[in-house]
Amino acid sequence: MSIGRAKLNDDDPTPQPPKAVVSRLSLYLRELQCLLRDGKQTISSTQLGALLGFTDAQVRKDLAYFGQFGYPGIGYRCSELVDAIRNILGTNRDWPMALIGLGNLGRALLRYKGFGHQGFRVVAIFDTDTTKIGKTAEGLPIFALDDLKQQVPQKGIRLAVLAVPAASAQSVADLASEAGVEGILNFAPVTLTLPPHVEQIGVDLAMELEQLAFAVAKRTAKEDEIDEKQAEKPKKASGS
Amino acid sequence: MSIGRAKLNDDDPTPQPPKAVVSRLSLYLRELQCLLRDGKQTISSTQLGALLGFTDAQVRKDLAYFGQFGYPGIGYRCSELVDAIRNILGTNRDWPMALIGLGNLGRALLRYKGFGHQGFRVVAIFDTDTTKIGKTAEGLPIFALDDLKQQVPQKGIRLAVLAVPAASAQSVADLASEAGVEGILNFAPVTLTLPPHVEQIGVDLAMELEQLAFAVAKRTAKEDEIDEKQAEKPKKASGS
Repeated sequence: MSIGRAKLNDDDPTPQPPKAVVSRLSLYLRELQCLLRDGKQTISSTQLGALLGFTDAQVRKDLAYFGQFGYPGIGYRCSELVDAIRNILGTNRDWPMALIGLGNLGRALLRYKGFGHQGFRVVAIFDTDTTKIGKTAEGLPIFALDDLKQQVPQKGIRLAVLAVPAASAQSVADLASEAGVEGILNFAPVTLTLPPHVEQIGVDLAMELEQLAFAVAKRTAKEDEIDEKQAEKPKKASGS
Repeated sequence: MSIGRAKLNDDDPTPQPPKAVVSRLSLYLRELQCLLRDGKQTISSTQLGALLGFTDAQVRKDLAYFGQFGYPGIGYRCSELVDAIRNILGTNRDWPMALIGLGNLGRALLRYKGFGHQGFRVVAIFDTDTTKIGKTAEGLPIFALDDLKQQVPQKGIRLAVLAVPAASAQSVADLASEAGVEGILNFAPVTLTLPPHVEQIGVDLAMELEQLAFAVAKRTAKEDEIDEKQAEKPKKASGS
């Protein structure tokens, strides 16, 4: 299978969009859905870009990877572009998910409002705690980890959300992969080794904080630099 | 202040590293810290790249934004590169944080193991629930939102982790900004409007799932294409 994929890539006529472009598609989708809720029918690339801090050229270039969506003199029709982006991302389909790990994070994720309306739907919960197994949470059945191999095909589960401790993340991911899960969203702060047919996205919260710290530290350094430069300059008349 | 910053940017001699490079720094840091725990002293750019699925050229190019770190014939000294990256990211300093919102997500974040050893330390919790205010969680005091303006300067809080419902995220972010917080890690699925001196990183969990869905959907489409191509081809002798 992997050889077949590699071959196909070589004579694949469509260029692969960079990851950053796909990330921005999610942002465009979010803004367009807000605009629709506010009753807006159309939007220009300049307006859409301005809402997100991008240039109009960036918006047009990103969307051009996937087709032609704008109308001369009108811009984009919001609902049409929402449908197109959801089709590109694959979120116009249903994505039945398993939630693995019903600790605090698992419970928070279950109640998270952002999932459902994009087609992501938890259909079963898995945990090791025998006091939870057999019960329900938010109306969903809680199974043992061993039940993954039966429940994943039976419920058509495609994605797994891993909210387990770092120490058990790899072994749980192995079980989910063997059961037939195609993608794993991993919240444990470890890198998983998975078979090539299973995609993974890691949500590393410490990494997000590092990116935030870098942005703050850089700005603070700049402000200090400005202060020093201003201190070096001969003082102008006060009030200038 | 913003004019000063804009001016400084114009004649700034150091090019700004792209966001993707800064993200990869976090990944390098994670791997290097693992290697150090496993007792490894040095690593080549090829080895480091291989661990993360990047080329050696990518590793060298990324690090070159920030200085010269490798030694000919040796590669990188792991502990030295860890220190250098932590210095670049600003995570060798202490980042006192406020956790705002002590629901399930807030509690999960409090217990999250990945934060502390990178210098991120929750020093105070803020919530609206009067049954929680005045008590402690994980040994940390729980304050009312109104206490932000007093506690942020007093405790030297620089970052805020926002784990509140989407509907109240903006007003809570306003309070935190006014209190002097410099950066906000926002878990609510909304885009915040903040003053220019406050940095923000949004953790949009639905967006992470969309990226995962895109990766899975793309792979599935390719496999279907392969199946079709193979079905079109005349059948070879069985066993080939």
